[in-house]
Amino acid sequence: AVLSGGPQAFPDPENSNLPVFTMDYARIQVPFEVTLWVLLASFAKIGFHVYHKITFWVPESCLLISIGLIVGAIMHSVHEEPPAVLSYNVFFLFMLPPIVLDSGYFMPTRPFFENVGTVLWFAVVGTLWNSIGIGMSLYAVCQIEAFEVQDINLQENMLFAAIISAVDPVAVLSVFEDVSVNEQLYIVVFGECLFNDAVTVVLYNMFNFVAEMPVVEPVDVFLGVARFFVVGLGGMGFGVIFGFVASFTTRFTSNVKEIEPLFIFMYSYLAYLVAELFSISSIMAIVTCALTMKYYVEENVSQRSCTTIRHVVKMLGTISETLIFFFLGVVTITTEHEWNWGYIMFTLLLALVWRGLGVLVLTQIINPFRTIPFNFKDQFILGYGGLRGAISFALVFTLPDTIGRKKLFITTTICMIMFTVFIQGISIRPLIEFINVRRTNRNLETINVEIHSRLIEHTIAGVEDLCGQWSHYYWKDK
Amino acid sequence: AVLSGGPQAFPDPENSNLPVFTMDYARIQVPFEVTLWVLLASFAKIGFHVYHKITFWVPESCLLISIGLIVGAIMHSVHEEPPAVLSYNVFFLFMLPPIVLDSGYFMPTRPFFENVGTVLWFAVVGTLWNSIGIGMSLYAVCQIEAFEVQDINLQENMLFAAIISAVDPVAVLSVFEDVSVNEQLYIVVFGECLFNDAVTVVLYNMFNFVAEMPVVEPVDVFLGVARFFVVGLGGMGFGVIFGFVASFTTRFTSNVKEIEPLFIFMYSYLAYLVAELFSISSIMAIVTCALTMKYYVEENVSQRSCTTIRHVVKMLGTISETLIFFFLGVVTITTEHEWNWGYIMFTLLLALVWRGLGVLVLTQIINPFRTIPFNFKDQFILGYGGLRGAISFALVFTLPDTIGRKKLFITTTICMIMFTVFIQGISIRPLIEFINVRRTNRNLETINVEIHSRLIEHTIAGVEDLCGQWSHYYWKDK
Repeated sequence: AVLSGGPQAFPDPENSNLPVFTMDYARIQVPFEVTLWVLLASFAKIGFHVYHKITFWVPESCLLISIGLIVGAIMHSVHEEPPAVLSYNVFFLFMLPPIVLDSGYFMPTRPFFENVGTVLWFAVVGTLWNSIGIGMSLYAVCQIEAFEVQDINLQENMLFAAIISAVDPVAVLSVFEDVSVNEQLYIVVFGECLFNDAVTVVLYNMFNFVAEMPVVEPVDVFLGVARFFVVGLGGMGFGVIFGFVASFTTRFTSNVKEIEPLFIFMYSYLAYLVAELFSISSIMAIVTCALTMKYYVEENVSQRSCTTIRHVVKMLGTISETLIFFFLGVVTITTEHEWNWGYIMFTLLLALVWRGLGVLVLTQIINPFRTIPFNFKDQFILGYGGLRGAISFALVFTLPDTIGRKKLFITTTICMIMFTVFIQGISIRPLIEFINVRRTNRNLETINVEIHSRLIEHTIAGVEDLCGQWSHYYWKDK
Repeated sequence: AVLSGGPQAFPDPENSNLPVFTMDYARIQVPFEVTLWVLLASFAKIGFHVYHKITFWVPESCLLISIGLIVGAIMHSVHEEPPAVLSYNVFFLFMLPPIVLDSGYFMPTRPFFENVGTVLWFAVVGTLWNSIGIGMSLYAVCQIEAFEVQDINLQENMLFAAIISAVDPVAVLSVFEDVSVNEQLYIVVFGECLFNDAVTVVLYNMFNFVAEMPVVEPVDVFLGVARFFVVGLGGMGFGVIFGFVASFTTRFTSNVKEIEPLFIFMYSYLAYLVAELFSISSIMAIVTCALTMKYYVEENVSQRSCTTIRHVVKMLGTISETLIFFFLGVVTITTEHEWNWGYIMFTLLLALVWRGLGVLVLTQIINPFRTIPFNFKDQFILGYGGLRGAISFALVFTLPDTIGRKKLFITTTICMIMFTVFIQGISIRPLIEFINVRRTNRNLETINVEIHSRLIEHTIAGVEDLCGQWSHYYWKDK
């Protein structure tokens, strides 16, 4: 309020009078510019909804990237550096947590536990399949002399494949929330992109480490597997612990209603940060935390706090998502690129092929265990809905500078994201309508059927509890 | 999620195997520690309400400072540096805005406009009176040889007086919200501490500038007066502009309900930051912004958004206030002090005397213009309720290092805050009960009287509007 330390104000105190106007921009720069960017992104969102015919056919993510591209071009032409919003730390510590908390908090619990096997199957095995498949075949492509990328070795290809093979929650959710597919399909895509984080973490760390190791011993493979369980189960463990502590804390907050919602945000964020601290899956930690505490918390807190929690979680998630796509566009323009037709085109092709093959093979294996097996149309949407997004983008910038072709990897990742978000993202809605995929099947059953099937399920869960046998009915009942 | 760049993880990549556990604390340190401090402060608040007998007699601010003192002592004994939460920039850019937004947003508009004359009278003339009175008489005290503070010149005394003479909104509100005095008294204290900011800004800047000037010309006095109007009216102007823009924006947000509340926070914060940019009264800007937009916004947004806005404003204000008092305690221990009995005791005494005299004189002048004049008991509470707080604390650290006695000023300010918050803050409730001050007079009138007096007021406002004469009825009607 008071201090005017700017050099503009006091150019020469010896000879000047008391200044009536002063300015000091440097001091308020960071919060001021952050607020302005958020405001700009919010205006874009208002704009899209005013002309809502656009958003029916083009996903909001595409529109935001396009606006980002325009803003990036303007900034580039006036040689202005964009803010480092998509830098590794800002992205993973501040932008991603609200989105994942949003996903976890509003995850439909019942369908999730009904499909938890399929979700983990696709998240773990599917991501492994993609990474290894893409990495190996990209290495084969590198041997073709005409492409002039023979200097990329196997480890680097595997590392790059680990980065781009994981389906991205931000991109997938923004598309699948608009199109209405049936619940089974939705929850599998939804769950896969949240729970493949553990695999990505381990693969990225492993290949990053292997790239600097002279000899890979057999013991390292076992350590890799061990690390996978540490990363995955550790993330879940932290999530459950923080979730229960949060639930327990809300039992005592009835006298401090004004700060009640704060506890939810702080505990979720702590779960995320502690997971980051130990380099385990922070996405799984915060999702598990949100899943665990949701029902207890909503029973404990007041009605007003509950409204606030839900609204703020949604609000922060939405604005983070908006900013991420927006800056994806901006940074695409302002980054240095290295173009290589062969490598980029083959990456796009191979990612699509391996994703398609993976879905076909994995569905064949899992279908016999499912109550409602996936038909061919479902498989197509599962494969085609494998969008890549900002997580790959933030990861590729963290590649060590010792990798000679880092710029090519960055360019390829951006192409991959643009291709999947624009081409696949825009065409998925017409395709769903064209091949007539089963749509949302909620509210189709009569209330009578609903009540009776619930009753039977509760009874089975009770019988199982008595026998000491727990099947998926037990978890459904939670 | 993925990168494990800590030196713990890879002590010697040549000879080590793939690590199963890794840790990297530096990366998450800032958000992690901020979250933990907030959590600690929130737990303290829960604790106070569990033993709510304490908070009835001792204001929460005192308890928080006490806990802060304990934590500070612990940190000091293990030589741990406290986080710089009460540094000038963090305090004025991040801690203060939520509190002032909270005050402005929930300010009772009707009583405020009924008493706006008295509020401005005390805020402007009262603060000037205090600053000049305390500054002059402290300079006189400095001439006493026994105190060994003859090196403090007039400018430095005036600068110091400007810092400590303003009544602090954070301290005053936290005490006056607990005790229930009558509405007129409450709104005058409430308004005074928010609107004296402009005077403090100008006086601080002026004396800071004058301290470095060889000659003070008469033109500088006029410039000072001009600057006062720029600072005060400028702050109000920015507030009104941003308030109306915010109100206008909410007309278009009905389709983006999930981010609706965000606009309120962003526009208020922008008003504050822009005011900071031009070194004008940011407190007045954000209060005016909140006052302006409140009614329009609450009509425009959905019921759920309205609940969220109110709850989040309250939540952020509460937690900021809690943290400020907490850190006031912590930093008191960890700061270097310079003790001087004479100077410190005389400052406490003079501040109390000038405040008391000021209230007596100013009330005599304003009473003939008031519908309900202040009686002697009201005057006593007005004078005794002049608590100092964190704003003085943050300001005193920004004094230029060229001032030799900066440490003494810091110590004196801390003593001043502790004295007013502890002694006056704790004793004000028993005193109010003892001298039997008129209590809250809301809901005393029958609904019949209420309706008729409102009707008459609306009629007068309408008649005035037709005549083109606007008195305070016009503003009441808003």
